[in-house]
Order: sequence, then structure tokens, then C-alpha cells
Amino acid sequence: MRLAIDAMGNDNGPPPIIRGVREFLGTNSDAVVVLVGDRDRLDPILAAEGLSKSPRIELVHASQVMEMEDGVAELREKRDSSIMRLAKEVKEGRADAMVALGNTAAAVGAATIMLRLLPGVRRPGIAVPMPTRRPGRPCVVLDMGANTVCKPSHLLAYGVMASLYAERVLGVESPRVGLLNVGEEKGKGNESLREAFRLLEASPVNFIGNIEGSDIFAGTCDVAVCDGFLGNVVLKAVEELASAMSDWLKESLLSSWRSKFGAWLARDGFKVFKRRVDYAAHGGVPLLGVNGVCIIGHGRSSPEAVKNALRVARESVKQRVNERIRDSLAAFSASQPADGAESD
Amino acid sequence: MRLAIDAMGNDNGPPPIIRGVREFLGTNSDAVVVLVGDRDRLDPILAAEGLSKSPRIELVHASQVMEMEDGVAELREKRDSSIMRLAKEVKEGRADAMVALGNTAAAVGAATIMLRLLPGVRRPGIAVPMPTRRPGRPCVVLDMGANTVCKPSHLLAYGVMASLYAERVLGVESPRVGLLNVGEEKGKGNESLREAFRLLEASPVNFIGNIEGSDIFAGTCDVAVCDGFLGNVVLKAVEELASAMSDWLKESLLSSWRSKFGAWLARDGFKVFKRRVDYAAHGGVPLLGVNGVCIIGHGRSSPEAVKNALRVARESVKQRVNERIRDSLAAFSASQPADGAESD
Repeated sequence: MRLAIDAMGNDNGPPPIIRGVREFLGTNSDAVVVLVGDRDRLDPILAAEGLSKSPRIELVHASQVMEMEDGVAELREKRDSSIMRLAKEVKEGRADAMVALGNTAAAVGAATIMLRLLPGVRRPGIAVPMPTRRPGRPCVVLDMGANTVCKPSHLLAYGVMASLYAERVLGVESPRVGLLNVGEEKGKGNESLREAFRLLEASPVNFIGNIEGSDIFAGTCDVAVCDGFLGNVVLKAVEELASAMSDWLKESLLSSWRSKFGAWLARDGFKVFKRRVDYAAHGGVPLLGVNGVCIIGHGRSSPEAVKNALRVARESVKQRVNERIRDSLAAFSASQPADGAESD
Repeated sequence: MRLAIDAMGNDNGPPPIIRGVREFLGTNSDAVVVLVGDRDRLDPILAAEGLSKSPRIELVHASQVMEMEDGVAELREKRDSSIMRLAKEVKEGRADAMVALGNTAAAVGAATIMLRLLPGVRRPGIAVPMPTRRPGRPCVVLDMGANTVCKPSHLLAYGVMASLYAERVLGVESPRVGLLNVGEEKGKGNESLREAFRLLEASPVNFIGNIEGSDIFAGTCDVAVCDGFLGNVVLKAVEELASAMSDWLKESLLSSWRSKFGAWLARDGFKVFKRRVDYAAHGGVPLLGVNGVCIIGHGRSSPEAVKNALRVARESVKQRVNERIRDSLAAFSASQPADGAESD
């Protein structure tokens, strides 16, 4: 298996990525990692890490880099950027998956331009697994920001894709799919949401109806479908809250010596807690709907997060998620009457 | 000062409300509380609590109750419901503020029907103060669900009202007002959000531009303006996450005896943490934009939450928040060209 990664997509430069790659290769003997980026910058780092001669690390040169402030327009100008080269590796069959770090809009754009969309998909979506009250049973929120203006048919495809992802990669049997709304009653939300409700109801997914924001964490559903605007605001809010709560907990426990000592004694308990809450544990999240495996990670990924993003990519390739999504969408489309009412 | 409260709006019946009222009166000697509800049910509870003869508790009879599943349509049929009677007490000047518990849609509906809106306000909004990384400096999120379909002018009024609330009741000087969006750049979001951006930019509030979900907790703004759909989903999600994280922390610390003992030693630190996170601490949140003080609390409020909701009501009356919002909106409207473009 060959996994390609954007070696330039880290706020702290390539070293954390290269260390993550080494950690990943240490525990995954079946994989080769293709580093995509500026050869002149990467060579000395590989040498310093003693990886220059590794037969399982390859280097693909890219002369340009997409900056964090670059938008999709800059993608067309930066054809030799690491993110475009990365997507090209998958497009031309030299890699089985791409791991993009950093600029999310650039990653979505490059993957869409290079890999194209799966038949029946009009917009790709970023799927983010969140921890829930049911241990080991995450809730996949889709879309977290690839597509901020969604039509009902986009939401339908999100439900189908996230359901397959939850089943195949996360091991959830018959995932319960909910539509994120302001109340559980059928008529809630605007006309677009009501139409999405009808489409999901008629689809083969295990649709449980409208859900509320609390259901993401309550353990009452396995997939939460929403447009990228809502998903983006919600996920950024909960990520910051979780991080702030962890910091407040630390500060509060340092407020007295006795409390500090107690916290030290309880350190194993805190480790259990941290594992349960840690959003970085997945390392990367899949962009679903493009014709190829694309995993998106943070621009400030630690080596561990990079390792985990590669692990998610490997799992997606092994589980043939994209092929299954493609087949499932094709079977579903074939069973539907021709859809002429909705353009794009 | 006379504060009226819906004595029927608790999932566990009137007793927690009546206990909260007693606690509130114990520390606020300048207030009289008017209980609105079924006299036959309330009399024996007041007697059991030894409050029958209290000169600072009055009872107003209401023969009907709005159930949790009742919508605004039922309000018109249940003219003698406790929530309608409650709003009537304020409307007819027999109370300075209403504290509604339970069915939020009913509370918004009753307040809007009875009290009417302030001049220049087209939709009321629920303002929820959230804890932030800056101790003692909350971020007011408005609207959390009174108005799920917002026009730009509604968002403008939300910015003005929440800014005044943050300044007058929460004591924030020159509150920084942000517009909840998927990125900070000026052009983000749909046309409605871009128009709201322009209106807020031209308004007298201290508008800092677009903000992201993370800014609610980051301490970067004091007011986050959004439509009631977004606000509802975000606030329900973060409320459940905060509650789940607290439970996961408890469970994790019980995972070993050493950790359990450590947590016991650190109990004061956890108390500090709890105070910082506790969403129930405010007890109730204001419905802004109606012509009277209306505080909305949970249907499962504890006596402490009821006490705090009454405290918020008292503070709002004392700070003359509504008068100030009315004056400020009037001054602002007078400075604007006539608005003919937008109906309703």
C-alpha cells in the first residue's frame, strides 16, 4: 500500500510530519509513504532523522506551497504546489491515498479537481467522528465545512456516504442516521431541510429522523447530517470548548497544594479521561465523495496526529470505502426516478 | 420589586420552584414573588413549606398548563394557562418581570403576544451567556432559538440588544460584537450574512467582524450574533458536550482506587472547575426585544437554578435593560435612512 502525504502542510514545518511518518512505518510494515514537497527542504531533514536511505519512504518534488490564506483560486495558479502534486499521485495511480494537512479549502479543492467526484455525488463532504456517551461508538458529523450551501440531494448523499463510512471504517452495524435540526418533529426547519428529510426517509439508510445538537454527543445516533456551514460552526465551537474545559480543569486543580497532590495521585484516571475526549486521536478525517481516498488533518498536527492520519488513510484503503460508496450510490441512483427538478 | 414566575413550568412539579423562590427571598429583601399557577395544587405545597402566610409571596390562579409538546397554536386556546397569565401580570403592570420555565416556544410566544415587541424590533431573541477563556467575561450568544429564520435586520437588532445586555447586566465595557460565520474574511457566508455584516459595520455597536465557532469560548468577543437555527444547534451541542465531559471525568477518576483517592483530595479544585463550567449558574436567560423583562429557564431547574433565574430577572429590572434597549434602538433608527427595501 502506498500512502502519499503533504510534507509541507504543517505550521511548524516538515519535521513533525516526518517524525509521524517514521512512527507510522514502525508499526505498519505493509506500507510505503510518499512525501510530497520541496526536495531541498526535505532532504536534509530526512538525513537528520536517518531516513534518507529508507526503502519505504519516497520523495516527490513540488516547487510550490499553498499558504494558509490561499483560496481555491490560488490552486489554479499553483499547479506545482505540494497539495496539487499530492492529489496527482492518487489520480495517476502512484498512491492509494492522500493525506492533506493544513489548508482545508485547498485540500478539498485539489482533491475535487484532480480526483473528480464519484458518480452521483455533487459535492464532497468532510466527515468528522465525535466521541459520544456510548464508549467506542462515535457519531460521524458530515459535512464540517467542504460545502457551506447544501441542496437536499447533497444532504442525502452525505447520509449515504457517512453511513457507509461508519459501517465500514468505524465498525458500526446499521448506523443510525439523523438530520441535524432544531427539534425532532418532522416539519422542523426550512423547506430544504424538510425535502432532505423526505429524501433520507425514502433512502436505504437507517434514518432515525431529525436530531438536535445534543444528539451528536448523547449516543443516540451514529451519523449527523448537516450542511457545511452548520457543521463548521458547531465543530469549531465544540473543539474549542473541549480544549478550554481541559485547560480550566488543569488550572482549577493547581489552585491548592492538596488539590495538586490529589490530581497527581489521580493521574491514571486523567489519562483515561484524555483518551476519551481527545479529538486529535483520529489525526485526520475523510473527505467523502471524491474518487479516491483523501484524509484531511490539522495544520498543527503533532507526530502522533500525523501517524494517526496515516492510519485512518490505511484503514480507508483496506476497507475499500470509496468503492463501496460508489457501488452503493450507483445502486441507489438506479432505483430512483430520474431527478430533473434540481439543477447542479 | 415584583417578580412573577410560572409555578407550573417544572418537570418535577411546583416544589423545586417554590423552594427556589424561598431561597431567593431569603437573600433579596426588596422583592415580592408572584407565583402563577393552579391554586389547588400550590396552596398545599406552600403550606407544607410553611410559606402560606408569607407577605412576600402572592398567588395568581391559572387553570391551564402548557405541556412540553404544546406549540404556539395551543397558546391561543389556552388563554388561562400559567404562561399566558404570567405574561399578563407584566403586561398589566402588576409585575416588573416574568420568569418562564419549561416550554421555551410557549414562553417566547406568550411574551410576544402579551408584551409586544419594542419599537424597531421585528423578532425577539434569546441571549445565552457562555463561559469563555477570560475569567468572569462571558460571551453572549443571541439568538438561541426564538427565531430560526433571520433577516439581516433581525441580526442587526440582535447585535444592538445583546451589546446593551452585555454592557448593562454583565458589566462589559464596550462589548466586542462578532457575527458567527465560517471564517473571518469579510465576504464569508451567504448574501443574508454579508448584508448583516454591512448593517452591523454601520451600526453604533463595537463590531469586530465575522467570528468562528471557536470564538464563542476563546474570549475574543463578548457577543456572538447568529440566527436561532444555528444558535440552537450550537448551544444544545456544547451543553451536551460539557455535561458528557463532566460525566466522563467522573467515570475516569473512578477507574482505580488511587485515582479515586486522589480525586477526593483534589475536591476543592474540582469545585473551582465546576463553578467555571456550570451552565446552570445563570439559572435563566433573557428574551430580548419584547416590551418587558422576560427570563427563560429550564424545565428541570433545581431550586438553585430557580433562585438564580429570579436573580437575573431582578438584575435586568434594576439595570433598566429594556428601557435602555428601547432608547438605543430608537436613537439608532432615527439616525438611519428609511428602510423600505426589506418587508417584515
